Amino acid sequence: MEKYSALSPQQLTELKTSLTEKYNGYKAQNLKLDMSRGKPCPEQLDLSMGLLDMKDYKAKDGTDCRNYGGLDGIPEAKELFAKMLDVSTKEIIIGGNASLNMMFDAISRAMTFGVVGSDVPWGKLPKVKFLCPSPGYDRHFAVTELFGIEMIVVDMKSDGPDMDTVEKLVAEDESIKGIWCVPKYSNPDGITYSDEVVDRFAKMQTKAKDFRIFWDNAYAVHHLTDKPDQLKNILTACKEAGNPNRVFIFSSTSKISFAGAGVAMMAGSEENMNQIKKILTIQTIGSDKINQLRHVNYFKSIEGIENQMKKHAAILKPKFDMVLDILEAELGGKEIAWWNKPNGGYFISLNILPGCAKQVVQMAADAGVVLTKAGATFPYGKDPQDRNIRIAPSYPSLEELRKAIEILCVCVELTSAEKLLAEKK
Amino acid sequence: MEKYSALSPQQLTELKTSLTEKYNGYKAQNLKLDMSRGKPCPEQLDLSMGLLDMKDYKAKDGTDCRNYGGLDGIPEAKELFAKMLDVSTKEIIIGGNASLNMMFDAISRAMTFGVVGSDVPWGKLPKVKFLCPSPGYDRHFAVTELFGIEMIVVDMKSDGPDMDTVEKLVAEDESIKGIWCVPKYSNPDGITYSDEVVDRFAKMQTKAKDFRIFWDNAYAVHHLTDKPDQLKNILTACKEAGNPNRVFIFSSTSKISFAGAGVAMMAGSEENMNQIKKILTIQTIGSDKINQLRHVNYFKSIEGIENQMKKHAAILKPKFDMVLDILEAELGGKEIAWWNKPNGGYFISLNILPGCAKQVVQMAADAGVVLTKAGATFPYGKDPQDRNIRIAPSYPSLEELRKAIEILCVCVELTSAEKLLAEKK
Repeated sequence: MEKYSALSPQQLTELKTSLTEKYNGYKAQNLKLDMSRGKPCPEQLDLSMGLLDMKDYKAKDGTDCRNYGGLDGIPEAKELFAKMLDVSTKEIIIGGNASLNMMFDAISRAMTFGVVGSDVPWGKLPKVKFLCPSPGYDRHFAVTELFGIEMIVVDMKSDGPDMDTVEKLVAEDESIKGIWCVPKYSNPDGITYSDEVVDRFAKMQTKAKDFRIFWDNAYAVHHLTDKPDQLKNILTACKEAGNPNRVFIFSSTSKISFAGAGVAMMAGSEENMNQIKKILTIQTIGSDKINQLRHVNYFKSIEGIENQMKKHAAILKPKFDMVLDILEAELGGKEIAWWNKPNGGYFISLNILPGCAKQVVQMAADAGVVLTKAGATFPYGKDPQDRNIRIAPSYPSLEELRKAIEILCVCVELTSAEKLLAEKK
Repeated sequence: MEKYSALSPQQLTELKTSLTEKYNGYKAQNLKLDMSRGKPCPEQLDLSMGLLDMKDYKAKDGTDCRNYGGLDGIPEAKELFAKMLDVSTKEIIIGGNASLNMMFDAISRAMTFGVVGSDVPWGKLPKVKFLCPSPGYDRHFAVTELFGIEMIVVDMKSDGPDMDTVEKLVAEDESIKGIWCVPKYSNPDGITYSDEVVDRFAKMQTKAKDFRIFWDNAYAVHHLTDKPDQLKNILTACKEAGNPNRVFIFSSTSKISFAGAGVAMMAGSEENMNQIKKILTIQTIGSDKINQLRHVNYFKSIEGIENQMKKHAAILKPKFDMVLDILEAELGGKEIAWWNKPNGGYFISLNILPGCAKQVVQMAADAGVVLTKAGATFPYGKDPQDRNIRIAPSYPSLEELRKAIEILCVCVELTSAEKLLAEKK
């Protein structure tokens, strides 16, 4: 297909007319499709129905999981998920059903009490800043914003955040206390940080001695292909670099078992975990141990989890493929849209012509297709170039997804044509 | 039995000798009994095994409880627990498995963001104080202490906190922002606040316009008799007094279903709930809805919960009776110990001669009976008179309990005899 930029004003005008017709046709169908969040679809949730058959309540150390206690998780849950995150059982805390809540709590604790190495709680400082590789995960940014932490956008490259910028900023500004990362099958770009990026994170000089990497490994085992991306172990790298306390790792089974009733976890150095447990012991009597046991006895081993993930992939891969095929068929070669082909995770990140994302998302919504809000993938909801759109293919059925992406493509084409036409006038 | 104070030094010395012998006899048995916490016993937990048979995942509004969403709980959980707490479904938020965590979060939010009516977050003030009716619940005090809130002891009377003192203090000191209450079958005294106390709480003038009562109604339905205590509805009273936002109510099913895997809840005015939900929506994707549904479908109704509580009472009442009988038999009339006879809850509060509690608890521990730490029922772990001991009869078997209380009584007698002997010398 021809580049849009090579089209004459008349060609663009004709294109606009035909696209508008096509768009109105979709609009008349009164569709109602929600693709705003990375939610598993019912078929994926069905994969874990066996969890509801689990009736065990005795942990292997004899703990009665029905009763109080077990602050950081039952032994077998720590073992299983430590393996998943490649850490030791002393380096993990099992939480409730939401890793988001564990991240929120980690920020909240840092603000109120500080972290290992803090002279004062972050909340007592005149200014706290976080680096936010973007596009990124809107819920990370929302937590940071809530606590009044200033967010600094760092560009995402094909192998992770722009580390030249990261290194420069953290070396010179003591008020930069942290960075948000989704290092594997990143949200939304779907890229996995290279070994070099991981090493640079571990080794970099930070002016703040209590700097923390918030390493949200949400998609640790969420592969779409048989040749999954490999992510270097950041905790090991940090230890080797002499910065063992630099990283807080988060993950959950939300997209392994049940998104609303899974098991979340946090990992990091023993010193970090011990500082957190001291506060946690005041905060709670421990998370739901029966649900932990349910998960361990259902999945049994890391191989059990990997098997489960293959079943997820069998459901998700055709959806991702369909999106990529339609994008290629409808937008390929036109130089109005660019996207990644992720090997895992939950999203496809679509970049279009600058200044067009909001309009496209609005047009899609008007035609019944709710996408993630334009700008949501950037701090403060402001995409500086207004060009990134997050596609979440997991929830809709294949048929719904086809229609939704076709509509999205028409909206992108129409908006691009209008923009180029306006520029040529 | 004769009063100890009427005994001569010689009689006391003889008593001391025979009690020491008795104590050493117990010590030689190498017992290992833990009565430190108010934990349900295995037989109580067995009452809820049917929960593990529940396999539903669709809420009645069609929500798939396996997936994300449902910030403040599924409709049927809100309905059931709103009934239990006598509030509307708009006045309740369903949480995770621990009301302690909801209380911690409520304090944390108030410190970081303030509550409805705050000019600034509490944490920005030079000083924040809480009233702590004592003896009270050690975990409340631990949360308050962690956040650097100064705790002021208020005496407990037979119908609730000493309201003359409460009213005076809150009227004159703007830095007093809250008070901890366990209003029904209080921890540890087992008393229920009178209607007058509830009304005075609702009506009192507070210098702080963002004062909050932390109303931990942990034992709302935890009766031991057929004539349960009645607690006046504080939220209604606060509304009627024109102070609708004054109270945060907390409760859970921890001692209805599973202590480690129940459902917690928070209630209060709609305005309070809305302010909290605004923050909660950043904090979490919502609590475990499957566990909510499990509870609702297992208990079915408030009558179902009440039935369950009768089964709990059938297990607990004999334990409470045994403790009370032994206390009466061993310590009655000696004027060395005083205790309440609660109609519900989890504790018997034992007051002994001033200056004796620590020694008694240590002696009991040396004989293998672990009690709640002496002083734990007061802020900072400091019982000003060193005289209160919390007895938690729920967990041990009847046989273990008998032995434990007999040992406790010997320790009380021996310590009292020693004290009186020292005073007479």
